[in-house]
Amino acid sequence: MITATAAEIISVGTELLLGDIINTDAAYLSRALAMLGISVYRQSVVGDNRERILSELDSAFSRCDTVFLTGGLGPTCDDITRECTAEYFGLSLLFNDEAMEHIRQYMADLGRITVTENNRRQAMVPEGADVFINSAGTAPGLAVHGIGRDGREKLAILMPGPPSEFERMAEEHVIPYLSRRSGKVLVSRNIHMYGIGESSAETLLRDFMDQENPTVAPYCDPGEVRIRVTAAAATEEEAEAMCQRTVDEIKLTDAGRYVYAVLDRVIPGKGTAAARVLVEELKEHGLTVAFAESCTGGLASKLVSDVAGSSAVLCGSAVTYAVSSKKAVLGVSDETIRELGVYSEECAREMAEGARRLYSADIAVSVTGVAGPGDDGDTPCGHVCIGVASERGVRSVAVEFGRKRSRDTIRTLAAGRMIHEALDEARLLK
Amino acid sequence: MITATAAEIISVGTELLLGDIINTDAAYLSRALAMLGISVYRQSVVGDNRERILSELDSAFSRCDTVFLTGGLGPTCDDITRECTAEYFGLSLLFNDEAMEHIRQYMADLGRITVTENNRRQAMVPEGADVFINSAGTAPGLAVHGIGRDGREKLAILMPGPPSEFERMAEEHVIPYLSRRSGKVLVSRNIHMYGIGESSAETLLRDFMDQENPTVAPYCDPGEVRIRVTAAAATEEEAEAMCQRTVDEIKLTDAGRYVYAVLDRVIPGKGTAAARVLVEELKEHGLTVAFAESCTGGLASKLVSDVAGSSAVLCGSAVTYAVSSKKAVLGVSDETIRELGVYSEECAREMAEGARRLYSADIAVSVTGVAGPGDDGDTPCGHVCIGVASERGVRSVAVEFGRKRSRDTIRTLAAGRMIHEALDEARLLK
Repeated sequence: MITATAAEIISVGTELLLGDIINTDAAYLSRALAMLGISVYRQSVVGDNRERILSELDSAFSRCDTVFLTGGLGPTCDDITRECTAEYFGLSLLFNDEAMEHIRQYMADLGRITVTENNRRQAMVPEGADVFINSAGTAPGLAVHGIGRDGREKLAILMPGPPSEFERMAEEHVIPYLSRRSGKVLVSRNIHMYGIGESSAETLLRDFMDQENPTVAPYCDPGEVRIRVTAAAATEEEAEAMCQRTVDEIKLTDAGRYVYAVLDRVIPGKGTAAARVLVEELKEHGLTVAFAESCTGGLASKLVSDVAGSSAVLCGSAVTYAVSSKKAVLGVSDETIRELGVYSEECAREMAEGARRLYSADIAVSVTGVAGPGDDGDTPCGHVCIGVASERGVRSVAVEFGRKRSRDTIRTLAAGRMIHEALDEARLLK
Repeated sequence: MITATAAEIISVGTELLLGDIINTDAAYLSRALAMLGISVYRQSVVGDNRERILSELDSAFSRCDTVFLTGGLGPTCDDITRECTAEYFGLSLLFNDEAMEHIRQYMADLGRITVTENNRRQAMVPEGADVFINSAGTAPGLAVHGIGRDGREKLAILMPGPPSEFERMAEEHVIPYLSRRSGKVLVSRNIHMYGIGESSAETLLRDFMDQENPTVAPYCDPGEVRIRVTAAAATEEEAEAMCQRTVDEIKLTDAGRYVYAVLDRVIPGKGTAAARVLVEELKEHGLTVAFAESCTGGLASKLVSDVAGSSAVLCGSAVTYAVSSKKAVLGVSDETIRELGVYSEECAREMAEGARRLYSADIAVSVTGVAGPGDDGDTPCGHVCIGVASERGVRSVAVEFGRKRSRDTIRTLAAGRMIHEALDEARLLK
């Protein structure tokens, strides 16, 4: 049996070569494999073309023993990844009852009764392959075992291309499968930091980064730093204890004060870490939050509502883009706008108080500023004021996110800061 | 001189192999090249490693004459794409004054005076290469000319990896450069459609898709279909006239009634096409819009405010996630909530009216529904009601986006529909 330490990823799909879709699968898989201690040396993209898929398989298997193929498992005649992999290893395709039963059931749930000949093709499995049932679609995943031209055992893992199917299958089947094969249990912890740059975090934690087990590696999320600690051990308990020791050591360094959460997993598409932590802690303490947004245009609220179950704690957000709305909806005073302007801390404070009142929220966080492009009169692009209101009173802060930054980046950083301010306030209130 | 018809893309960067960043550059470039009539047969990703970059270059140049390399042009010693390309062709690296002057100026604008030895490395250029100044960073792009092992003329185009620098350089330099070399002028028009699926659009427009010049190709944006028409001709006028003829013909087909806009360009990061068209038309007619959002959590407003200059027409959005906020902020009646529930068309209508009143907007569009995960009691996941209020009165519609769809997808589709409802209303009002 192969225990993978190195792998390559081949993504199959003409729509990737046309640039119509972005290859998020390769990034997701690479990240998951890095966590399992498997190095990805190469990713490639080829079209739905028999010669090119076969030649790519041959070249990948000349360099390593494990190759992941994503895409090309659909029901149409373009989809030939399964057939090409079987052909490469000289394996027959056999009809698989379990896969067919799943396809039938999945389509029945969608209200489609007619199972076509094309769907039957998706139930054809290379002999000896392990089958991964697809809980978000019809095409099963496959672990195909063969012998390479170098006489070595080879493993091709085939996964569906659509990210929703791909990610479910990675989580439910492929990662556990690889981890079983490795005979090791891998446990990770993510240390989330806010208020420190990636290079400063790296400098402070350099010694940890040289460790071999657990490994310690920095990642850059928008406006944040994440340190991933991964331990490999014979049992889960042992790996967890190793992780915990390193996490505790890191918290005792000078970087420790920037840590706002330690989470087991980063879950793509389930909301940012900060939004998830905010929703969780507000729930725990029975608190609610509202926002008042100008330059972020609703992004802070959108980020919190990305988290399933946020309706228990998120009252809402008053997006007041127009000056008149700041007055009419949030009750910002004419005088403040006239004397200090909309890009003032006072305006942010009045917006936060207005939102707290309007939504009867425990905590309200506001934002007003210039997201660009370009300065607005005397106020430089990137100048943002944030207000926070709660029963503790009202406070504000002015931040310069930088004139060279794009509109999109400034808005993302401002919304991130708002969520962190809400989290800080919740911790002060509890 | 090579006139490219086929090309490969090599993305260089260990962070891509670790899955820390997603390869958006390859998708962007592939799309741009498709528009220029250049087919991309393969994309690959390799780490910042001399042997692997050289071997990848060799294998790519064995299949085609034009290769794009993205990434690895930074100032640190990891960044070796420039050196490897020069080595591959046996070219010396020469110090380039123009590039250095730009680097010095760019850093001075950022407030950094000290130009390090590493920055000087970025001004080293393989002999005979064309230099593309980077208006969003320091590393220049390069068009490096060499001879391949097959004795043929080869062209390697090197571009910086960070998407903001990459996309600016593609627009400002690389696409015009390729288009000059091809001796042809390419003009594209994007026909944006809403309310029709991709496969229906393809069926209705099949004959057009077989055309050779202009080419007609469908693309799938979230919830929408875009048909790109690209004409190649000796002059811009000629190419424009050819495009226009095909656009007019397509508008006369049965697919024509789904067309809501024909735009010159798709601009990444500047807002969706529908949001851009909405902002433009509202401005033109002196109208304003507000939203009332429940399940979208602020996304509709965020999408409109992605468009620079939207502050002239977007009053804001009342995000009322909690039931109590629907009543307190928007004045939805107790009776409606008790008798018909929050997921009712009546609730959507009252929300729209409330938002129109609160923001004094010409048009208000509301949404309430279940984004999931899972049903909420008797209301299935994906059930969404949208309300529209203006001086024409108030109307509503209930849409089922499908139970199998993810929370993220349902929210995206719902926000898209809201923007289209606002656009329809603006056109009825004008």
